[in-house]
Amino acid sequence: MFAKRTEFLKASEVRELLKLSDVNDIISFGGGLPAEESFPVEEMREICSEILEENGVKSMQYAISEGHVGLRKIIVKLMAEKGIHANIDDILITSGSQQGLDLTAKVFLDEGDTILCESPTYLSAINAFKPFYPKFTEVDMDEDGLIPADLIRKLENSSNVKFLYTVPDYQNPTGRRMSLERRKSIVEIANRYNIIIIEDNPYSELCFDGRKLPPLKSFDTQGRVVYLSTFSKTVCPGYRIGWACGTQDIINKYVLFKQGTDIHTNFFAQMQIAGYYEKYDIKEHIRSNVEIYKSRRDAMVAAIEKSFPEEVEYTRPEGGMFLWVTLPECLNTKELLLKSLKRGVAFVQGSAFFPNGGHENTLRLNFSGLNEEKIAKGINILGNLLKEELYAERLAGC
Amino acid sequence: MFAKRTEFLKASEVRELLKLSDVNDIISFGGGLPAEESFPVEEMREICSEILEENGVKSMQYAISEGHVGLRKIIVKLMAEKGIHANIDDILITSGSQQGLDLTAKVFLDEGDTILCESPTYLSAINAFKPFYPKFTEVDMDEDGLIPADLIRKLENSSNVKFLYTVPDYQNPTGRRMSLERRKSIVEIANRYNIIIIEDNPYSELCFDGRKLPPLKSFDTQGRVVYLSTFSKTVCPGYRIGWACGTQDIINKYVLFKQGTDIHTNFFAQMQIAGYYEKYDIKEHIRSNVEIYKSRRDAMVAAIEKSFPEEVEYTRPEGGMFLWVTLPECLNTKELLLKSLKRGVAFVQGSAFFPNGGHENTLRLNFSGLNEEKIAKGINILGNLLKEELYAERLAGC
Repeated sequence: MFAKRTEFLKASEVRELLKLSDVNDIISFGGGLPAEESFPVEEMREICSEILEENGVKSMQYAISEGHVGLRKIIVKLMAEKGIHANIDDILITSGSQQGLDLTAKVFLDEGDTILCESPTYLSAINAFKPFYPKFTEVDMDEDGLIPADLIRKLENSSNVKFLYTVPDYQNPTGRRMSLERRKSIVEIANRYNIIIIEDNPYSELCFDGRKLPPLKSFDTQGRVVYLSTFSKTVCPGYRIGWACGTQDIINKYVLFKQGTDIHTNFFAQMQIAGYYEKYDIKEHIRSNVEIYKSRRDAMVAAIEKSFPEEVEYTRPEGGMFLWVTLPECLNTKELLLKSLKRGVAFVQGSAFFPNGGHENTLRLNFSGLNEEKIAKGINILGNLLKEELYAERLAGC
Repeated sequence: MFAKRTEFLKASEVRELLKLSDVNDIISFGGGLPAEESFPVEEMREICSEILEENGVKSMQYAISEGHVGLRKIIVKLMAEKGIHANIDDILITSGSQQGLDLTAKVFLDEGDTILCESPTYLSAINAFKPFYPKFTEVDMDEDGLIPADLIRKLENSSNVKFLYTVPDYQNPTGRRMSLERRKSIVEIANRYNIIIIEDNPYSELCFDGRKLPPLKSFDTQGRVVYLSTFSKTVCPGYRIGWACGTQDIINKYVLFKQGTDIHTNFFAQMQIAGYYEKYDIKEHIRSNVEIYKSRRDAMVAAIEKSFPEEVEYTRPEGGMFLWVTLPECLNTKELLLKSLKRGVAFVQGSAFFPNGGHENTLRLNFSGLNEEKIAKGINILGNLLKEELYAERLAGC
């Protein structure tokens, strides 16, 4: 009765955990929730009132698939600040950045095409692409992101490569950032091998340490980078407003599939986001959000240093929302998760982020959604569990 | 570079026309716009204010893919009023009914599967299904909707039939309604041939004449009907809030793909719709909307009677938003549309609603989006054009 693709699609454990964290008072490092304290609730009341007073009917009627013109103009400016020269016809408003991934699959993927991606990569990108039956070839990464030499190796040994999918800034799940040098080098490799780059960049504004780096698309001279982003991490995720930016030729294809997918994105919400950017100081807003996130990152790193066993490795992200933990290979984070949940702490097992499986000794921690106190408490519980598990494994000869 | 499916997907002419009607003062019977006068703008101001006061943070945060619990409870009641016994786990909130179609394709369609549908059928359903490479087998219809005997004939002569797609109430594009007897008979045929029915039912509330009929799903004793609907025609389309209702087993699959498609539907908008149903009298609201639509339908039928040539056939819908016109076969509505646009009147050529093409002498007219004066004016222009064209064709020997 069901399509074949239903067989390999499993429930997102992050989502299932989110449901769990709705009903229990669990400390969840599992989701990817922005800090609630960062939402401009009061400002939105004013904006809603204004929209309904000035453009009530328009905000409730059907609209064009491409998206609200005023919002696209705002995005053109955001892009220009990052060194990306676009006009409004190069922008499509999407229902969250997640829809950018669904449309990417529809526009580019034939069955059996190869997707190159970081190892590990964003779980929900895997879930967006998989229904279209691609193959995934994982490319090695280190602290500076995707490794160009390994990318070339994989390109030489793969057939039907359609695109490279990359999250260069504070990657979900590792929190790593791709270096400037590698950004240039990877665009150059894409030119040489004639492949598309899907640059998924939701976290670039959440930069705690050092300076922001220009996106890969800013080095794109051949129109082969599609840049996806979202207002979920700068305003709020509940409105599901993201965008795709690419050459008009490519964006036109995205628009075509957008029509069959959901006709257009909620128009009232597009006006809400546009209204926020027009009336308020977004840079100041992001600065104050970054303070919250930085403090939470610091709290998590400090708690890990204090309570995790020495054998455990972890990233120290300079931005974003996630931190990546690698345990000794004898530990299995699927089993660990069950034990951890019993003690009231959730995380996501790392294997979910590897499209071809494996890496059962890794896990992802989110630090943006909980306050410092809960972070310290939860990491301490997790640290104690890890010590016990390692001790038991050592007795067993690990 | 692009996927194969990009080759056969053309821009929706309705959408392109919508863009056109944004910038010019054309009289457009092309779109499917609800009457602007029907939108509860003032009420929404109050609702937005309340949401942000009482649940501001929650309305802006990520939420579960299944949708707002309060809204799903409201839908459970709406379903019960129609004789459909569901609980909230049988309901998924979708980003408009259109997304219900996209998810339907993902859940059910393998390449080469056959979709049975009315001839003609909803254009954007064709566009939602086509990217998954199905075959379409069109089933004949008459004034009482889909013809059961032809459905059986097509079932006997098709392979890999996955589902029947039907719009039983005031169908887009014909405005026809399926009779009670046929509803029962078609569910029974689906049982016999073990196929799924996708019942797309956005227009059932827009009933001008006579009584509402129970949906096909109310006769479904085997859990094989998936019911799709929307608040676009009862509250407003701009918020993109629809739902799918089916057995939990089926809806769970929809939820899985929903996660990869856009994670969840705009949560603020779900609260807006729920707030409207909780605070206001929706039945009264729909009653007053129906008055508007009925009057516009009457205006269109009267104008057609007055100004269309006698050889032209058309439906007299008892509800919904559309009227279907069949011209003498010598006329081609694609050519007619270009001429009509020059005179300031738009419609949609009917061939777009036949997945396998043909029927170049048909067209669809929308009567919900324009006031009576514009309807009379536009139909008069169209009628004059039709008379001229028919006269010219007759001279040429049509």
